[in-house]
Amino acid sequence: MASNRPEAPLRKLMGPGPLDIHPRVYQALTSPVIGHLDPAYLKILDKVGELLRPVFGTQNRVTNAAPGTGTSGMEACVANLLEPGDKVLVCVHGYFGDRIRQMVERQEAQATLIESEWGRPTDPQRIEEALKKDAYKVITLVHAETSTGVLQPMDAIARLAKAHGAMILLDTVTSLGGIEVKADEWGIDAAYSCSQKCIGCPPGLAPVTFSDRAIRAAGKRKHPIRSWYLDIGLLDKYWGSERVYHHTSSSSLNYALLEALRLIEEEGLSNRYARHLKNHRALVAGVEAMGLKMLVAPEYRLPTLNTVRIPEGVDDVQVRSYLLEKFNLEIGGGLGTLKGKIWRVGLMGYSSSAENVLFFMSALSRALALQGCKTDLAAGSDAAMSALDA
Amino acid sequence: MASNRPEAPLRKLMGPGPLDIHPRVYQALTSPVIGHLDPAYLKILDKVGELLRPVFGTQNRVTNAAPGTGTSGMEACVANLLEPGDKVLVCVHGYFGDRIRQMVERQEAQATLIESEWGRPTDPQRIEEALKKDAYKVITLVHAETSTGVLQPMDAIARLAKAHGAMILLDTVTSLGGIEVKADEWGIDAAYSCSQKCIGCPPGLAPVTFSDRAIRAAGKRKHPIRSWYLDIGLLDKYWGSERVYHHTSSSSLNYALLEALRLIEEEGLSNRYARHLKNHRALVAGVEAMGLKMLVAPEYRLPTLNTVRIPEGVDDVQVRSYLLEKFNLEIGGGLGTLKGKIWRVGLMGYSSSAENVLFFMSALSRALALQGCKTDLAAGSDAAMSALDA
Repeated sequence: MASNRPEAPLRKLMGPGPLDIHPRVYQALTSPVIGHLDPAYLKILDKVGELLRPVFGTQNRVTNAAPGTGTSGMEACVANLLEPGDKVLVCVHGYFGDRIRQMVERQEAQATLIESEWGRPTDPQRIEEALKKDAYKVITLVHAETSTGVLQPMDAIARLAKAHGAMILLDTVTSLGGIEVKADEWGIDAAYSCSQKCIGCPPGLAPVTFSDRAIRAAGKRKHPIRSWYLDIGLLDKYWGSERVYHHTSSSSLNYALLEALRLIEEEGLSNRYARHLKNHRALVAGVEAMGLKMLVAPEYRLPTLNTVRIPEGVDDVQVRSYLLEKFNLEIGGGLGTLKGKIWRVGLMGYSSSAENVLFFMSALSRALALQGCKTDLAAGSDAAMSALDA
Repeated sequence: MASNRPEAPLRKLMGPGPLDIHPRVYQALTSPVIGHLDPAYLKILDKVGELLRPVFGTQNRVTNAAPGTGTSGMEACVANLLEPGDKVLVCVHGYFGDRIRQMVERQEAQATLIESEWGRPTDPQRIEEALKKDAYKVITLVHAETSTGVLQPMDAIARLAKAHGAMILLDTVTSLGGIEVKADEWGIDAAYSCSQKCIGCPPGLAPVTFSDRAIRAAGKRKHPIRSWYLDIGLLDKYWGSERVYHHTSSSSLNYALLEALRLIEEEGLSNRYARHLKNHRALVAGVEAMGLKMLVAPEYRLPTLNTVRIPEGVDDVQVRSYLLEKFNLEIGGGLGTLKGKIWRVGLMGYSSSAENVLFFMSALSRALALQGCKTDLAAGSDAAMSALDA
């Protein structure tokens, strides 16, 4: 590779995202670019919304892809739902819950934190106690914490929020398309995700959904929404029937997203969730049989992002560099307090496959052996195979 | 086209953008997606910055593509440069100057407006008068007003801003890559553009550049930047040497942008500007010889976006629908007060070609004839040919 012409190597992506992309999605990327107000393009945006709704588990009219990465979706939800002085219950049990906190504070909303150990979900009882003490406009939660691999059980919290009339703002970045999201059943008022994880598209778009209640609340704000770019009222005028120009929607990315959503529709949501669960179980069975440990207790593990504890004495960066250089394999390191303590292994979308489970175990076993850490690959492979056969 | 499978038709794009894309750029879009922290990917981002600098006419270290459309670039510049109470001189002579005003107001900065007729630039004398009366932190200007086709002369204003110590925030959405931008010579502190116009890439990215003075000022703010997603301090930590994760950069779009920038480098900036100018002159000579009139006086015309007055009695929407349906040709309508009064004809990037000039004239002549408006296509074609031969 000449230094004046850097090119992308062909990686096997098993980190927190992006993940490997289905060939049909790559192909869709090169569909001819057309204008953002072309009647043919508006049909494509409508179809994106139509196919996103079942994945979010919602009938919300305002459901489409915000023009930025997942973090733009987070900002769209926070900036539209909150204004200065609003009381918010911010549940933090990882890096992304904390990112929401930072955004809430930048909106000058009044945040009350419920902080939990990274690697555990937020206990609904703590939310109940907080709701008994004070009234909150919004509760922010992370359904699938990308930094820890923790799945937040939602049913009890949904009931509490409903009983106390609080809105829920939900991060579904590492769940949408790989784990069931029930936005309507849970009474979610704003949820966001990204295009490049379980949805299986390149990064650059942020699927979002807003309830009618959230849209009405945004329309009655005292302070205008500080972000013009992510103002859901303006986005709705473009996505919705008025078709008022707001931004130059990226046709290339939306073609890819639409094709990724078609793949989801063809597979069927329940088949897709079952596939993610099966491959996750195989990976866990495999790495545990190899002698490694998971960070998260079984009942709270994400099927999409597996967090494996780094064995004592093993160098995180050396292992990941070896995997990248030797096998072109990307896995993720830990973030924040978990840096150097865990690896994050993504099995999402197209890349949630038996092939990837087995390849990862073999490559990791070799990387650990070079660090003087012996693992039982044969036992791991047997355990993974049994789980795949189950 | 089955209604349940909307597909993009193959259009000829001659509106305000997106424009037609070079095949090499489409090809780059399908380079394999890799991780946003992959060392190979960071080299690609570095190269994007390196190739953007000469196009902006800058040595600014903080020069790269913000993760959203051109409007995200506008918001990045406004939200980072301004905080509540800051005095700003906002020059509005079109739709996009007014969009800046709206963003300035959402930041609760104190805007003083200099409004000029749509179709004319801002008179430097009015800026001088304002600067004599009061001190302003920032002057906002639109170098190339996409709504009117007006080029704002910058030299006199640059001298005034320097003499009064005001920062300049500049919209280069319809100039960057097609008309010379001299960010350093003009003393620009923040400028933004989009990927899909003269740069010749699909939409979804916003090239931006920030001066060292702007970065220092952002670091000394009293109020945190309200946008976490577009906080230039956080973006700089990712783009710069620290490489701190901020967002999942869209590798697909950045591959395409890099290839588009390579095409610019290969052509050479002065050749590229000359090509845009020649095709613009041919189009103007042609439509004027056909009997049509331009909105903008010759000395202020953008070579990239041509605004043609709609002849008396001709229906704007019928003409544009006919061009789209009969010839798959997209041109733009007017925005705001110019709606129904002008057409916006883009000759930008790959689509600035003799072929497009001649095709547009023929198609328009036919569309006008169907509206009972006779034009002299032979004279127009002769005039355009002469300009192309010049």
